[in-house]
Parts: sequence; C-alpha cells; structure tokens
Amino acid sequence: MWGYDKKLQYPVNIKNPNPQLAKFIISQYGGPDGELAASLRYLSQRFSMPTEITKATLNDIGTEELGHLEMIGTMVNQLTRGVSPEGLRKAGLGDYYTDHGVSIYPQNAAGNPFTASYIGVKGDPITDLYEDMAAEQKARSTYEYLIDLSDDPDVTDILKFLREREVVHFQRFGEALRSVQEKLAQKKFYMNNLHTCPNNNTPPSCGCQNVPIISDCGCQNNN
Amino acid sequence: MWGYDKKLQYPVNIKNPNPQLAKFIISQYGGPDGELAASLRYLSQRFSMPTEITKATLNDIGTEELGHLEMIGTMVNQLTRGVSPEGLRKAGLGDYYTDHGVSIYPQNAAGNPFTASYIGVKGDPITDLYEDMAAEQKARSTYEYLIDLSDDPDVTDILKFLREREVVHFQRFGEALRSVQEKLAQKKFYMNNLHTCPNNNTPPSCGCQNVPIISDCGCQNNN
Amino acid sequence: MWGYDKKLQYPVNIKNPNPQLAKFIISQYGGPDGELAASLRYLSQRFSMPTEITKATLNDIGTEELGHLEMIGTMVNQLTRGVSPEGLRKAGLGDYYTDHGVSIYPQNAAGNPFTASYIGVKGDPITDLYEDMAAEQKARSTYEYLIDLSDDPDVTDILKFLREREVVHFQRFGEALRSVQEKLAQKKFYMNNLHTCPNNNTPPSCGCQNVPIISDCGCQNNN
Amino acid sequence: MWGYDKKLQYPVNIKNPNPQLAKFIISQYGGPDGELAASLRYLSQRFSMPTEITKATLNDIGTEELGHLEMIGTMVNQLTRGVSPEGLRKAGLGDYYTDHGVSIYPQNAAGNPFTASYIGVKGDPITDLYEDMAAEQKARSTYEYLIDLSDDPDVTDILKFLREREVVHFQRFGEALRSVQEKLAQKKFYMNNLHTCPNNNTPPSCGCQNVPIISDCGCQNNN
Amino acid sequence: MWGYDKKLQYPVNIKNPNPQLAKFIISQYGGPDGELAASLRYLSQRFSMPTEITKATLNDIGTEELGHLEMIGTMVNQLTRGVSPEGLRKAGLGDYYTDHGVSIYPQNAAGNPFTASYIGVKGDPITDLYEDMAAEQKARSTYEYLIDLSDDPDVTDILKFLREREVVHFQRFGEALRSVQEKLAQKKFYMNNLHTCPNNNTPPSCGCQNVPIISDCGCQNNN
Amino acid sequence: MWGYDKKLQYPVNIKNPNPQLAKFIISQYGGPDGELAASLRYLSQRFSMPTEITKATLNDIGTEELGHLEMIGTMVNQLTRGVSPEGLRKAGLGDYYTDHGVSIYPQNAAGNPFTASYIGVKGDPITDLYEDMAAEQKARSTYEYLIDLSDDPDVTDILKFLREREVVHFQRFGEALRSVQEKLAQKKFYMNNLHTCPNNNTPPSCGCQNVPIISDCGCQNNN
Repeated sequence: MWGYDKKLQYPVNIKNPNPQLAKFIISQYGGPDGELAASLRYLSQRFSMPTEITKATLNDIGTEELGHLEMIGTMVNQLTRGVSPEGLRKAGLGDYYTDHGVSIYPQNAAGNPFTASYIGVKGDPITDLYEDMAAEQKARSTYEYLIDLSDDPDVTDILKFLREREVVHFQRFGEALRSVQEKLAQKKFYMNNLHTCPNNNTPPSCGCQNVPIISDCGCQNNN
Repeated sequence: MWGYDKKLQYPVNIKNPNPQLAKFIISQYGGPDGELAASLRYLSQRFSMPTEITKATLNDIGTEELGHLEMIGTMVNQLTRGVSPEGLRKAGLGDYYTDHGVSIYPQNAAGNPFTASYIGVKGDPITDLYEDMAAEQKARSTYEYLIDLSDDPDVTDILKFLREREVVHFQRFGEALRSVQEKLAQKKFYMNNLHTCPNNNTPPSCGCQNVPIISDCGCQNNN
Repeated sequence: MWGYDKKLQYPVNIKNPNPQLAKFIISQYGGPDGELAASLRYLSQRFSMPTEITKATLNDIGTEELGHLEMIGTMVNQLTRGVSPEGLRKAGLGDYYTDHGVSIYPQNAAGNPFTASYIGVKGDPITDLYEDMAAEQKARSTYEYLIDLSDDPDVTDILKFLREREVVHFQRFGEALRSVQEKLAQKKFYMNNLHTCPNNNTPPSCGCQNVPIISDCGCQNNN
Repeated sequence: MWGYDKKLQYPVNIKNPNPQLAKFIISQYGGPDGELAASLRYLSQRFSMPTEITKATLNDIGTEELGHLEMIGTMVNQLTRGVSPEGLRKAGLGDYYTDHGVSIYPQNAAGNPFTASYIGVKGDPITDLYEDMAAEQKARSTYEYLIDLSDDPDVTDILKFLREREVVHFQRFGEALRSVQEKLAQKKFYMNNLHTCPNNNTPPSCGCQNVPIISDCGCQNNN
Repeated sequence: MWGYDKKLQYPVNIKNPNPQLAKFIISQYGGPDGELAASLRYLSQRFSMPTEITKATLNDIGTEELGHLEMIGTMVNQLTRGVSPEGLRKAGLGDYYTDHGVSIYPQNAAGNPFTASYIGVKGDPITDLYEDMAAEQKARSTYEYLIDLSDDPDVTDILKFLREREVVHFQRFGEALRSVQEKLAQKKFYMNNLHTCPNNNTPPSCGCQNVPIISDCGCQNNN
Repeated sequence: MWGYDKKLQYPVNIKNPNPQLAKFIISQYGGPDGELAASLRYLSQRFSMPTEITKATLNDIGTEELGHLEMIGTMVNQLTRGVSPEGLRKAGLGDYYTDHGVSIYPQNAAGNPFTASYIGVKGDPITDLYEDMAAEQKARSTYEYLIDLSDDPDVTDILKFLREREVVHFQRFGEALRSVQEKLAQKKFYMNNLHTCPNNNTPPSCGCQNVPIISDCGCQNNN
C-alpha cells in the first residue's frame, strides 16, 4: 500500500500561465507514453516477476511514476490557473473546457482518454522488461518533443528533470533484464508459475541461441 | 508524492486457486467501477477542488484506492497461481492467457482494457462530488455482485472488507459535498479559478432554489 | 415505442453561423455528458427499476433527452449552415469536415466518437439513481461551460433552457431515489429480481446505518 | 421531438428464461449492427439530407429503430428474469453480472460497449444512403445468425419480425437513393449546403459516368 | 503473401511543405474511411467469399489499397518534411508532434487512433459487398472533402487520382454483387460453409422477394 | 506498392476443425501483439527512419508480417470450416458468430476490435527500434501461450514456425538499432529531419553516457 507525502518529487513553480503548453503537456498525464501508462504498466507487471529484486525494481519505479503523474498534473494546473474561458479558447483549449472545465483529465494532447491498450503486460519477465525499456524510450522522446515546444524556462527545467529520470529508469530496466537472463542461464531452464508446462509436458522447440533465453520447460541446452 | 509500505491494507491469503473467480474479480482492477477508476478519478479531481479539506479528502481516498488496487491484483494473482493453461482454458481464461499469460492486466471481466472514458472530471466541485458518490455506489454494487458469485469464504471476506470501505467513502464524499455547499451559501456566491465569469460578466440565470448551489458569477440570492 | 412530433421542444432559430461554437456544442450531442449519453442511460436503466413510478420517471426523462438531442443537432446544423470549407477550416473544423463534411456526427468537442463507456447501468436502483443525479450535474456543468464560451444571445438562450431542464431532472431523480429508499425501509429488506440471494442464502453483512439502504437478502435491521 | 406510447411495436412475451440467448441478443441492443447504431445513424444523417422526403424517410426509420431497441431490451430482460447469479454464471454471463447485474447495458455479445465508430455520417446524401443500405444488410445478417442460435420459438418469432423490418428498410433506402439520384440528374449538377465550392470555384474532375452522380460544383455533363 | 515493389502506384512529388494539409490527409491513412480501413476490410472478408472470382476481386482491391496507404503516408511525410516544431505547432500539429514527432501514425484528422470498429466483416457475401460499396462511397466523399481543403495543385492531383480509383472499386464491387446474386438465383437456394443450417434443419422464413436473395437453408422459391 | 503472390509463406493445412483454438489464435490476427499490429507498426515507422538500410529492414519485416496475417486468417478459417452454429456456440464462439458469422474479423481473443492504440510510432529511430524489439518479444510470448493451448500438431507446427520468425525479427531489429547508434556515434551528434532544433537552437541537456545516444542538437561529447 502507499502513503502520501505532501510534497512533490521536484518543485513545480511556474510563474506564468501558458494554456497552450498545458494542452501538450497533459499527454504525459494520460497519453500513450505518459506517467499513468508507465506507473500502471510497472505496478501491474510486478505481480508475475520471478525474483524479489525485479519485483522491487518495478515497484520502486511504478511508485516514482505516480509522483511524476502528480507533478504533471500540477504543471497543467499552474499553466491554466486563472485563465478565462476566452483565453482557453484562444489557446486551443475550448474543446477541453467544454468537457472538463479547468480540471485535470487523463487524456493525451489530442484529447483521447487514457486507455490500457497502450500498455503491455504479458507475464513473461523477459518480454515485460523489453516492454518497459521501450516505454522509457517513448517517454524520453515525448519529453524531448515537449522541450522543443516549450518556450518557458520554468517548464523546460522540470521537463528536463523528468527526462533524466526516464533515462535512469531505462538503465535500471536494462540491469533487471540482465539479472533475469543470468538467472535463467544458471538454471539451464526456466519455469515460473506464469508459464507452466503444456499438457504433454514436453518442451517447446529449444533452439534459441543468441537471443534472450526464453521460458521453456526443460530445455537443457538453452544458453 | 507517494511512498510504498510493503504490506497490504488488509491481508489477502487465499488458500485455493479459483481462476473463474479471478476472471470476475479482475473487473475491480481495471473495470468501469474498479479501484483504478476510483483512484484516478479522485487524484485527478483534487487539483480543482476549492478548499484544502476537500482536496485532502480526495487525496486520502484516492491513495487508499491505490492500496485496494494492489489488494485486487494480489487476489487475482493468488487465485490463478499454479493453474495450468488447460486449467485456465476450462475456467474461461483461455482468452486472457493468450494475451496476458498469468499476469495482471487492467481490464474488466469481459476483457475490455481500462479506459478513462469511465470517469468524469468536470472541474466543478459540486458536480465532481456527485460523480464520486455515484462512483462509490457503483463500486459497492460490483462488490455485492462479486460476493454473489464467490463460493470461497477467503475471497468473500476480503470482498466484504472492500465493500465496507466504499460505503465509508460514500459517506465522506457526502460530508465533503455538504461542506462545499455550506461554504458557497456563506459567501452568497461562488467563483473559483475554474469558473471565471463569461465575457459579458453577467451571471447566468439565478433561480436554482432547492438544488445544490451552482457556480455563478454574482448570483446574490442563491441559497 | 416512440412517435415523432414534428417540432422541437424549444425553438432553435439561430440567425448567424458560428462554426467554432458548433464545434463545442456538438459535445452535448455525442460527448461524455451529452444528451445521447443521458437518454441511453435512462432508457436502458428503466428495465431493472423496481417500481412503476421510477420506471416512468426514467422513461419520461429519457424521452425528453431524445428531444434535446434533436435540439443540439439542429443548433450545430444552423451554426454551420452555408459555411465554406475554408470557413470551417479557419474555425478549427477542418478535421471534422474531412471525416464528416457538414453533417452531425455523435462525438465530443475534441472529436472522440460517442462510447457507452461513458454511462453506468448497474441494475441496482439506488446506484443507478445516484449515477443519474451525477449525470445531470455533469450535464449542467457542461451547459455552463458552453454558456461561458458563447458570444451569441440566440445560442445562450437555448443553452440556458437546456441547463434548467437538467436541474429539474436532477430534482426528479432525487425524488425517485427517496421513494425507492422509503419503499425499501418499509419492507425492512430488499430483494428484487436483479439481486437474488447468493448460493448459501445468507445475507451479506448488515450494518449500513446512515447510508442508503442497500440490496441485501433478509437484513432486518436495515434502516 | 418524440412522444412515448406505452406499448411495443410487436409483442414480446417470452415464457422461458434463457440467459445464454440473452447474451447473444444483446448485440442488437448495443452491438456494431444493432438497433442503437441504426437509429443514431439515421437520426444524425437526416440533418444534412437535401430533400424533405429523404429527411422524412430517415426520421421515420430512425424512430422505428428506437422502438426496436426497446423490443430488444425487453427480450433480454425477459430472458434473464429471475435467473440466479449461479444460473447467469453457467450461461456465460458471469462477466456481465459482475459489471451490470441483470440490467440492460448497450454492448455487443462479446461485451464491447457501444461506440459511434460503428456508424458513418458523411454529409453526402449518396454516400449516406449507401451506408444505410449496407447497415440494413448487416442487421439482417445478424438477425439470421441469432435465428440460427435460437432454440426458443417465442424468440425466433420476434427475431423474424425484426429481420423482415430490416429488409423493408433496405428497400426504402434504395428508393430514397434513386430519388436523390434522379433529382441530381435533373439539375445536371449538384450543390447543397454541405458541399460548397472549393476556394478557386472550379469543379473537381467531372468524369464519373456510369456511377452514382456525385456532388460537384458545376459539372454539366454529369449523368 | 505479398512482395514489395519499390515504387508508388502513382508518383508523389510534393514541392512545398504544408503541415496543416498533412493533418487532414492523415485521415486517409488511419481514419474511418481511409486506406487502412479499406485494405483490412477487403483482405479480411475474402476468406468467407463463396466464389473464386469474388475472393480475387477482394484480394486485388485490398492489395491496391495497401499501395494507396503507402501513397498517403508518403504525402504526409513530404508535407511535414523539414518543418520545425514551431511550424508544426502553428499548423495545429502541436498535439501530433507531442505524441508522434514527425512520423506517420494511423489516426484520423482529429487524432483518434485507427480502430477496427470502423469496418464490418459479417461473413455473408451479399452483406459484405454492400458494406464494400458503402466503404468506397465514404472514401470518395473523404477525397472530395480533402480536395476542397487543398490549395496545392500537387496534392490535389494525387487526391483526384485516388478518388477515381475508389469510383472504379465501387463499380467492381457492384459487379461482384451481381455475380453473387446471379449465382444464388441459379441455384435457387444458397448454402455456403459460413451459414450452415440451424439445428432443426428447417429454413428460416422464405419470403424475401424483390430483395437480394439471402442465405437460407432450402428456401426453394427464393428469387 | 505491393504485389500479391498466390501462396502462403508457410503451408497451412489443418485437417480437423477446432473452433475453440480458432478463438484464441485470432488474437494474432487483430490482437495487441498480433501480425496486423506488427505490420502496421513497421510500415508506418519506416517513413521517419534515418538510413536506407533501416527503412529497408522495416519494409521487409512489415511486408513479411502481412504474409503472416494471411496465414493466421487461413488458420482461423480452416479451424472453423463447416462447424455448425451449435458447434460454434459450444466452443465459446456464439458471441463471435452473432456479429461476424464465420468470417475473419480483426479482434483479439476476448473480442476487442483492433486498435492502433496498441502501437507506438514516435519518429525517433532509437525509440522506434526499441518499440519493435519489445513488439517481437510480445509476439513471441503470444505464440508460446498459443502453443501451450494447442492440442493439434498441425496447428502447433505452424505456430512454431511463426514464433521462430519473430525471434529472427527481434535479432534484425537489434542489428538495426546498433547500426543507428554507431552512425550517431560517428557523427558525434544527431539531427534528422524528425527532430529539428528547438527555437533557441541550444541543445537539451547533454549528459546521457552509458545509454543509447539520444537525439540532440549539437551535443558533442555524447558517446
């Protein structure tokens, strides 16, 4: 379970409203590569991870992304604070104002509500960790695009902080992947509670040299 | 930001696998009235609440629902632990196994990925608190339906705990609604940063006696 | 079944085209809190209502919302009548023109097609009536936001009429809720064909004082 | 606007519950080719029809489909009336019961909530009428599949009635299409308020012999 | 299977960037009536067509639409080539840049990701061919709207080519429909592997004169 | 453009119908990690790849996945060939039969229509290639789960072939990633037409040692 600590992971003090920038930044709240997608992906995947250390990595990062979600919400809130409906309309937020006033709704920049279709949870640790590394790259790219669109140093500073965190997460997922691969290599075979043997108990084909070792039932020469 | 405390809000120790029950219970993970929907709704709405106390209520309950999300994930995980693909197939989880193995994916019982279309965030505190009261009633109903479907006392016990929490949340949202209504009545009019005056600065029609006081600009006799 | 009466519930005679306003108003045609959502919600819920009077309330209001849907369609049609593609493009309707010409498509302001994910139909009368009260509050807020965005008195007048109707519906749903709660209190327990007893025929926990009486099987002291 | 007449278009008196059949039939409530899709499509398209007679055809049929929607809801309601949660689960409706109890939710047989992505509203009368003819064929096919799945003569009888109505609607849309094409041929060119001339006022290419005359600006030899 | 031929079906050489036009044109990449929808519809339907010639027609056209998809992607790519983030933002593509940079994502003009909900695959050849004729009309209308919005002759020229192809496809589907209807008339009844007899082996009602002959089991006087 | 070659990439000759297996296998037609998702992802991403060789890799694999899509469609078609509606219903395909008869519709095993929300196209070559590697791992896992569920050697043999191809694609995307990284290292900085400099022309922060070199404008010490 989680406890709330009444502070942000990194300070968000934006001096000037900028609704148009808010419209783009909200994609990191509820968009395809945003913080909600990240947090939900990792916190869901952890249940089927094979080692305590990978469970912990997913849990740590998933929890941190919740804090990023809060930072993004705070940014959007500050960037639209006190802006009149007319000001919102001129900034391209008339659509948003119609359905959500000046609140924070989990959507991407174009207005699509968040969907879990964005995330993969496959229950295979190798696969899930590749999914996570790709997710961090996609988040990094989004932050770079937002930095390109930002003309406010206050905003850019926060976006750069968040970008750096994604790069760190990418590295941590890479390490987790290697640890899982090594563990699988040691055991010469891999069987977790997620991938029990098929009915006839014979392994699927066992010829995956040079690629990440995959989950099989009794594949001896798998390294 | 949030910190993780390595325990569940309420113990989940299910002794017997029961994949069919897992299939239904997952709706409280990623379904229309589930814990993710609840948590995301409240944590998003809090940004535009007009008082510190309503912000805090939404934050508290939103954080608790994250803990419920974890409990539901743990239940699904325990109910499917060690079940063979054949066992999953027989329990109606062949579809699920195809796309998600034995992991926890945010979907409803019928297999629809979670979508933020389930939740309302309008930026009007009266409206958002009614949305929240309705959400708690919908969650309560879902837990009752799951209790009907459960034949395992271990599972039923946890479902009853969660149902009780929804009832408590419903009451707390009712109290928050009254506190906002009283505050609005005291001030005789209501204007927050979410609802600035229209361009001509004249109030919309002011004749809403006997109903919750609504956001207007300068409506004096509104109570 | 329904019969068509060739008139609008309230006259719609907008003198000046205003495509940008049309873009926002279409949210009440096919958006999350629009008239289609309202009508479909009530007309679907009525099948499982426990009393003839609540069935009738849902049927009446659901039928009236169909008439509002028609009014909104007429408004959008009048606001875009005779506008050139160039004029539509300048008003931010180039996207809309590409896929729908100058017709009326059930979408929200941001362009998301209507989805039934917006609505709750739970089959529990208390829950469904709370859902309906929340729905009316959300519709009210949307009309207020549209009034904020409107600079045409012809349009504002109609929006105010529609807002008032939502407030009336909110009150009627509140009365229906009370009537259902009283009926349940009289009977000391509640059992309808939607919520038959669980297999072991024992009631769920019975300690819900001070909250709306909930559906249980044999809970005697429930008031 | 519409008035409600408290009777069904065709009597629905199903003697025996049959939840599994209900699960399939609900697709004609909220599925891709169901009655909601039909009604919404026609009632939305009518706003941009070029003649009073085609407007009236769409309005008539759209209104009749509302009555069919009610018939389908009544069928599903009767087929699940009094069935216990256990009975629903055995019939494959455990998923449905979890999220919707024994109410009527606008979804298809597989559990996807209704979406307006199913329907086309293009604002070109020729196109929209072809869309409508295809829609009626799709509805006809669905009713045939449901007849195949039905083992209850009470149900089959109603399904056949509804199938016949779709065939009649198909014919009426064909007649409407011919009337529009003839009108366009008479005028030798076609210009309605939905399709104003491009900026340079020159017609798009004018060589569409042997196909339905299409909307152009000044194409003289178009027949 | 398919082989790639490194050329476009029709040359795409757009001299001037025009990001706003790109924003509209992308609807023919991943929008409701775009080339992906068309190709996927026809290539999926062909599996259940009753004759080799209709299978071949669907296969040919489905394959050609893949080539059109590539042309549209190339157009969008050329129209946004070398445009700065600032230029994209000014053209209304700030939303798009946030989530997709300057790549080609399968969405419609308003930013909705492609969904197969747009397409009908019913497994009844008459129905599917009507669906296809309607699809071609919808694609034709979209191209006409895009021609209206285009102010670049290079672009308009390509759009006209694509529009013509849709008209040709419409004709070919009409011919395929007639060939299937004739085949059905010859045989006096129709039974393919898609529509086997219901359990009791008796035909559904057989009174569909004057309409396209429909799939039945043993209906003799059906013509 | 593409040309059709009337043969499958690998023979599909399944001797026995098995509709339940078909229900699972269709996920590789239109599911989150299926062949349509793969093909569409690669064919869309290629437009923004920086080198001819990576464009060619994406084009080759995207084209091959089209052939796999056809193989999967053929498998589903053979597995349901000649099965009666009653047989489909018993195999859990009553839902499917209701809406799609015995045709091939792009959906996942649980019945969700394909959506492009499943795929990432970011326009950053490093990111897109990680997305592709993750996609191949997800496809591999799905094929393994299907192999677990299959009890027909004819089917398993084809699934193994397809699984092997995904492994080969994973390796090829890894090589493409390395080639792009090397190219970026050589140039000491990276700038393609997808990622032009922000307005002030100063680079984002340049401290990304030990991670894949990322797109920056003028970052010299980036390797």
